[in-house]
Amino acid sequence: MYKLVLIRHGESEWNKENKFTGWTDVNLSEKGVSEAKNGGKLLKSEGFEFDIAFTSVLKRAIKTLNFVLDEMDQDWIPVIKDWRLNERHYGALQGLNKAETAEKHGDEQVKIWRRSYDIQPPALTEDDERYAGKDRRYSNLSKEELPLTECLKDTVERFLPLWHEEIAPTIKEGKKVIIAAHGNSLRALVKYLDNISEEEIVSLNIPTGTPLVYELDENLKPIKHYYLGDQEAIKAAMNAVANQGKSK
Amino acid sequence: MYKLVLIRHGESEWNKENKFTGWTDVNLSEKGVSEAKNGGKLLKSEGFEFDIAFTSVLKRAIKTLNFVLDEMDQDWIPVIKDWRLNERHYGALQGLNKAETAEKHGDEQVKIWRRSYDIQPPALTEDDERYAGKDRRYSNLSKEELPLTECLKDTVERFLPLWHEEIAPTIKEGKKVIIAAHGNSLRALVKYLDNISEEEIVSLNIPTGTPLVYELDENLKPIKHYYLGDQEAIKAAMNAVANQGKSK
Repeated sequence: MYKLVLIRHGESEWNKENKFTGWTDVNLSEKGVSEAKNGGKLLKSEGFEFDIAFTSVLKRAIKTLNFVLDEMDQDWIPVIKDWRLNERHYGALQGLNKAETAEKHGDEQVKIWRRSYDIQPPALTEDDERYAGKDRRYSNLSKEELPLTECLKDTVERFLPLWHEEIAPTIKEGKKVIIAAHGNSLRALVKYLDNISEEEIVSLNIPTGTPLVYELDENLKPIKHYYLGDQEAIKAAMNAVANQGKSK
Repeated sequence: MYKLVLIRHGESEWNKENKFTGWTDVNLSEKGVSEAKNGGKLLKSEGFEFDIAFTSVLKRAIKTLNFVLDEMDQDWIPVIKDWRLNERHYGALQGLNKAETAEKHGDEQVKIWRRSYDIQPPALTEDDERYAGKDRRYSNLSKEELPLTECLKDTVERFLPLWHEEIAPTIKEGKKVIIAAHGNSLRALVKYLDNISEEEIVSLNIPTGTPLVYELDENLKPIKHYYLGDQEAIKAAMNAVANQGKSK
């Protein structure tokens, strides 16, 4: 049996400002730093040990991981940073306020962009300064890989090759893995692991900074999963995420 | 022409307490954190960009690197953590106060242990709790690789394979490299690059948290090197390191 730990980054500056973030590389808020450290303390108190970590190329996930590992006194483990663990690309919505966007386009439209499985938000153009092709961290990506926008289905499709080619084989080698990532890249993984339907996955909310433990059998099929920490506080955090996209 | 940047970790808790540290995994002091951040600010103000970083498996170097990269907004670059960049192993002196050790064994003996090229400090035994074979981060090392003590010559010998097999080829690929490491693992590299004699290398002091830039030709022979920052402050810091091993 294997244990895999997932953690969503702590609150970012733009979570706090209620903006669509996507691939924008925003920092953790002070609250986010505390959340990350608390996640590390929980893992430490439960005696978790890791051999390797995977994260995105976005600092809110990388720094969350660094805080977690530092609290656990496991700063030394190898860390793989991969763009395929990035948050869903939010297209032309990146940088816009979620509530203002809801006022302009209506709650229903924003809900569709945020929570439909296969409808993309409006796309960026390649001359937009937010286009990832202008950022040297993505210089190894082909034009086809560089997103202009993504629905959750797109995120699932670009994430799964990383799972199959790198993460799953690492777990099967017996290495204890932690993944520090984002609301939607973690949804992509949870959808795959638990075989969740397209309808259900969009209303599954993963709280920030809270270690989510999966126990997997020898074929990496989940036996069970659970969050570490105060279960009531976790439920409240999951509801808070669900309510962000409403105008009032 | 290539540029390679070296940075010695900021002050650690045990630098501050004037203890022999070696492979003990002590944290940065508050001053050390500031030094690391300042190193990052200097590199950023000079417009440095990195493609990959190498560091040790000791948190004072890893965290220095993390602070540097965060200040530069380059948290996303790959980081290779390798034990061969660790500080020199200080054997049975690890954890002892430098001045007290000098009072007990004499300034001259401590100077020999600190500054001779090929005389090892007293060795640990394998049943000592400080033995690296008891630490799971070194579980991939053979018994021959696990040090009981090291002189600088030993550190040079275990570091150079990393240089030849991994770091030098990476630089020759055109990747811009930063190395965040320790006083003696950086001495090992500087000795090799500048072909410094065994007598001279032991009195070369690298200040903490100060980016040291090497410009290298196509064969990785140094054209020149220089520290970034306030040149007078750097000289003072180099002298402070040299004076630590004296009893008064």
